[in-house]
Amino acid sequence: MAQDNLCVVLRSKGDLRLENCAVPEPGPNEVLLQMHSVGICGSDVHYWQHGRIGDFVLTKPMVLGHEAAGRVVKVGSAVKHLQVGDRVAIEPGVPRDMDEFFKNGRYNLSPSIFFCATPPDDGNLCRYYKHNASFCYKLPDNVTYEEGALIEPLSVGIHACRRAGVTLGSTVLICGAGPIGLVSLLVAKAMGASQVVITDLSAERLAMAKDVGADFQLPVRRGDEPQQLARSVAHLLGTQPHIAIECTGAESSIQTAIYATRSGGVVVLVGLGPEMVTVPLVNAAVREVDIRGVFRYCNTWPMAIAMLAAGKVDVKPLVTHRFPLEQAVQAFETTRQGVGIKVMLKCDPNDQDP
Amino acid sequence: MAQDNLCVVLRSKGDLRLENCAVPEPGPNEVLLQMHSVGICGSDVHYWQHGRIGDFVLTKPMVLGHEAAGRVVKVGSAVKHLQVGDRVAIEPGVPRDMDEFFKNGRYNLSPSIFFCATPPDDGNLCRYYKHNASFCYKLPDNVTYEEGALIEPLSVGIHACRRAGVTLGSTVLICGAGPIGLVSLLVAKAMGASQVVITDLSAERLAMAKDVGADFQLPVRRGDEPQQLARSVAHLLGTQPHIAIECTGAESSIQTAIYATRSGGVVVLVGLGPEMVTVPLVNAAVREVDIRGVFRYCNTWPMAIAMLAAGKVDVKPLVTHRFPLEQAVQAFETTRQGVGIKVMLKCDPNDQDP
Amino acid sequence: MAQDNLCVVLRSKGDLRLENCAVPEPGPNEVLLQMHSVGICGSDVHYWQHGRIGDFVLTKPMVLGHEAAGRVVKVGSAVKHLQVGDRVAIEPGVPRDMDEFFKNGRYNLSPSIFFCATPPDDGNLCRYYKHNASFCYKLPDNVTYEEGALIEPLSVGIHACRRAGVTLGSTVLICGAGPIGLVSLLVAKAMGASQVVITDLSAERLAMAKDVGADFQLPVRRGDEPQQLARSVAHLLGTQPHIAIECTGAESSIQTAIYATRSGGVVVLVGLGPEMVTVPLVNAAVREVDIRGVFRYCNTWPMAIAMLAAGKVDVKPLVTHRFPLEQAVQAFETTRQGVGIKVMLKCDPNDQDP
Amino acid sequence: MAQDNLCVVLRSKGDLRLENCAVPEPGPNEVLLQMHSVGICGSDVHYWQHGRIGDFVLTKPMVLGHEAAGRVVKVGSAVKHLQVGDRVAIEPGVPRDMDEFFKNGRYNLSPSIFFCATPPDDGNLCRYYKHNASFCYKLPDNVTYEEGALIEPLSVGIHACRRAGVTLGSTVLICGAGPIGLVSLLVAKAMGASQVVITDLSAERLAMAKDVGADFQLPVRRGDEPQQLARSVAHLLGTQPHIAIECTGAESSIQTAIYATRSGGVVVLVGLGPEMVTVPLVNAAVREVDIRGVFRYCNTWPMAIAMLAAGKVDVKPLVTHRFPLEQAVQAFETTRQGVGIKVMLKCDPNDQDP
Repeated sequence: MAQDNLCVVLRSKGDLRLENCAVPEPGPNEVLLQMHSVGICGSDVHYWQHGRIGDFVLTKPMVLGHEAAGRVVKVGSAVKHLQVGDRVAIEPGVPRDMDEFFKNGRYNLSPSIFFCATPPDDGNLCRYYKHNASFCYKLPDNVTYEEGALIEPLSVGIHACRRAGVTLGSTVLICGAGPIGLVSLLVAKAMGASQVVITDLSAERLAMAKDVGADFQLPVRRGDEPQQLARSVAHLLGTQPHIAIECTGAESSIQTAIYATRSGGVVVLVGLGPEMVTVPLVNAAVREVDIRGVFRYCNTWPMAIAMLAAGKVDVKPLVTHRFPLEQAVQAFETTRQGVGIKVMLKCDPNDQDP
Repeated sequence: MAQDNLCVVLRSKGDLRLENCAVPEPGPNEVLLQMHSVGICGSDVHYWQHGRIGDFVLTKPMVLGHEAAGRVVKVGSAVKHLQVGDRVAIEPGVPRDMDEFFKNGRYNLSPSIFFCATPPDDGNLCRYYKHNASFCYKLPDNVTYEEGALIEPLSVGIHACRRAGVTLGSTVLICGAGPIGLVSLLVAKAMGASQVVITDLSAERLAMAKDVGADFQLPVRRGDEPQQLARSVAHLLGTQPHIAIECTGAESSIQTAIYATRSGGVVVLVGLGPEMVTVPLVNAAVREVDIRGVFRYCNTWPMAIAMLAAGKVDVKPLVTHRFPLEQAVQAFETTRQGVGIKVMLKCDPNDQDP
Repeated sequence: MAQDNLCVVLRSKGDLRLENCAVPEPGPNEVLLQMHSVGICGSDVHYWQHGRIGDFVLTKPMVLGHEAAGRVVKVGSAVKHLQVGDRVAIEPGVPRDMDEFFKNGRYNLSPSIFFCATPPDDGNLCRYYKHNASFCYKLPDNVTYEEGALIEPLSVGIHACRRAGVTLGSTVLICGAGPIGLVSLLVAKAMGASQVVITDLSAERLAMAKDVGADFQLPVRRGDEPQQLARSVAHLLGTQPHIAIECTGAESSIQTAIYATRSGGVVVLVGLGPEMVTVPLVNAAVREVDIRGVFRYCNTWPMAIAMLAAGKVDVKPLVTHRFPLEQAVQAFETTRQGVGIKVMLKCDPNDQDP
Repeated sequence: MAQDNLCVVLRSKGDLRLENCAVPEPGPNEVLLQMHSVGICGSDVHYWQHGRIGDFVLTKPMVLGHEAAGRVVKVGSAVKHLQVGDRVAIEPGVPRDMDEFFKNGRYNLSPSIFFCATPPDDGNLCRYYKHNASFCYKLPDNVTYEEGALIEPLSVGIHACRRAGVTLGSTVLICGAGPIGLVSLLVAKAMGASQVVITDLSAERLAMAKDVGADFQLPVRRGDEPQQLARSVAHLLGTQPHIAIECTGAESSIQTAIYATRSGGVVVLVGLGPEMVTVPLVNAAVREVDIRGVFRYCNTWPMAIAMLAAGKVDVKPLVTHRFPLEQAVQAFETTRQGVGIKVMLKCDPNDQDP
């Protein structure tokens, strides 16, 4: 095993570097992983550009990256379900306490959870990384490392669609055709949605959404009136959607989502915008349209792997760019510019395959 | 059977009168009822004062009243489960169409539903009234007519607590100690809530809430800071509440409800305020605090009767004033002034008992 | 409009005839339909052969048929959503009473429900048939009459999978590869099941299941030991299934379903066997494997039409035989012999297309 | 701190002794407890008499006891929420692995769970005992140690009623008036059940159930016909119960529970009887009566403490006998004879209060 451990370190706001760190030693319940593929997330770029997201503030250097897959190279003494050589996808959130949230199956809400690349916890954009073995999931032979890394964004879509209650014959509005809108689209279809309308400001993004399976694309311009957009959605579908999945965080888009959704339906808030927003809550309330948020995800990796192995969800087209780990800064710059969908960093110098 | 049928008619905004109308003839699926006790609701007063509530606009004279109980005096030819002499509570909403909402058990959301005293549908503040027999529920001997009439406001509390998911050991914040806040309190306790905090601007209302069973009363003043109030709630309970039931409709109170509720919990919106409100949706979303509205109720009468018959909910203290039907205008004036909790009109000249 | 109305009448056990009946007149809430395609169900054959199913006993002549689609030729005075010429699928169960089950959205459990071809209610294997308009659903242009007729068996699969809680990544065991097993398979896949194992005694049926999308086929022989079969299921899937859908009614198959299902999972009983069965209830109970039955279905037509219109479920291969209505007795004989999957009767002499 | 640690040890089937063991040393996530009150459970007696329960077989000496409360005397280095002197109730089941069941909030189903006094895991009928701190819950001042110990059997009732979906106005049949039937009764009432019928062979037990709050008592004799008993239940309630909670495990009682339950309702299996039972599954299936088991419980301690602190559940009358730890064998003999309801062992020689 090589002893150098090249890491993508955010030293402070705006200061992104490659540094060589010590290879960590796994504890009894951990495994050491040789990282293979790690996607760059909008949040990684946000920390780089702004040094914070909400209450999470960078106060010391942090390794970035949390959409990741790698290979087990060392196994902690208490680990039973993994062995050296296993290819695994990494769930980046690991609860530290057996608190009420964890015990109730909603460990993503645990306030003390460890989460890769959320200050002060280091991520896994590096050559070698150790992680709690219970949150590393073995990949079947027919699932690639990159698909394994993409389970992280896919999980956001799964959690959103599950919280929304997407089921057979659901009609769905997705606001925003960025990476999260696209994975929500993929998942909604896989859960039985009959028709999906997707909105975006960008014609290019809408074209990608069409390729990925959207039934209708609704171009939106700044200043469009939310109630009018809601009517357009109903017109396209021939009916109001049961569910809206809001992935932009924009106030006007949240308003559109509420107006558009059928009585008794659900609006899921995935996109994060300003702290305070002005919305037609009475309209939602008297039609019993529930408004539900999502915070990351929980219990998604096993079902994601099952779907990928069964070929029921195809995430491969989401990867539009690849860079070797050594070119991480260039890769981040590409992501910052918003070209393509997903940029993948290849961390294993001897295997840069998908 | 007497042939006069004195009715409380709202002819137009501000013009409330007693008029004598024809006694209606029940259809095959209907029963004719001699009305006994009918409570005055805030919405009755609102139509009187403003001629409208939201999109519901008075355009022709309408009989008021929808919190009602009476005695069967005539039975339609197809009615099997009721007979003359039965004492019944009336569910005022009767779906007209077997649409998707009715078929799915959420008939309150059916857009074509008949609803007593919602324009253009007449209510039952009168001597004789006919109603769909399937929405008249026989009262056991140990449940009074007034308890029967109070099932309507109680149903709002039941539906709110059910949508909130109140269960064993729930801690609950109720915003507003008016009639709906009080019935929500009664129901929350009956469903197993361990501790309830209630807020109000009025010390008198908080005192009533204490009498009815609130564990903590939190006085609120206009201008109080919502995040500070949320902290006070947590301080009183020793923990954040699982559930908030917002009964005021005030923007600042909705904000308080969101900030106060525990991660993974539920805010139920019962009170209706301005169409657009400014709220901390991101705070709710990232803590997966669901925001759910209620529109009236459905499927509540049988469980309400069961609880009243079992003596598990005591609504009798809610009735603070009684007037004979002939003094309806005076009774409405009393309600408008906001004294007491519930004003009951006694429609049967030969039986003015509770 | 032709005035002859050829009907498939079961006069008494074993006595199946074609008779000419009067064309019915639709009531205010009904539509008159010219029938187009009607599938033959195992229950139709069972009434023909045995004169009863459980407590439902044929005591007077009855028209058979309840898997049906047709064209509106006359519209009742109160019907708003349909017009002459509309192509519709027929939901055969129509609740007669607004009882607690209907109000709660489970109208299939209403004891007084009308149901086509269940004594004493007539079915729709005829030229002209009237039905409650609220239970006739307009077909989009891209859904054929035969697909419309197949919504009935498909609905059994939808209700079973919905009661089972099939969702993204579910692994499913289906016991029995007859028509109901096959539609359950189609629906489970459309709801996101990642892998489905199907069992049957017949190699031919298993081959059809494979064609329809089963991931694994497990041949069963009479006398096979249930716990051994359960192990075989786990071996094929690499894990125990989350869900078992039992479509045979055989005691040993119910036992297999219980043993096979993962702790915390669900067994759905669709097949009906002997009144009393001997089963390992303790094994299910201590592993919290729920056992849930299904009685027909409710609220399935809209989602089924949505799926068919979206091309997400393909039921066309299920139709293996077609006969004109005049050859109904021959068609029933074909079904009785168990060849093929679904026999379709073509009721419109001028249009025998799918 | 005293250094002797008297323990109630089951050396082998039938061989129950008091032995002095070493005082254990708590690990980083553990606390050392001075035990105060420990109830004797039927399972403790069963291990003593039979050396096994199902697949759990005593193969080496084991300390008995799992209904327990004590005082913290030493705190592990990583424990944050407890300190020396805290009075705590002990949840006896502690998951060892972060497996799918734990992550999903159903840790009671985790196959590798540690559970007090289930072979090979030692219980806490002793002077000093160490336990995972996350499964020790601080008792408020107004909840006694004995109430704390009774949370364990109460939790079985909570889990049963929760799985049953008991809610406002539920009517409930409880089969069996032993300790578990009684706690289920207490919990059902606290969750809003309007009326509860309880059955038993013993008039004495039925009398206790009446004292604890049962609305109706139905005496049962061996050989009574289940369908007749089901009719008696409906006759007492005036309707079929929504829910049946079966606490006997007897085949005939399970049959009665199925026949008695209303269509669309739930039968919960709490009592454990023979491996194979003969039951009317078709009757349950076609009426969509769900059959659900319970295995111990999960996530019950916090809500139980909330209810006890609020005075909403009164478990104190369940304690009918008390013995000092030194008289454990006599206490076990008392339990074996089935007199009274709950026998409590007092483990702290300096504090034998409730």
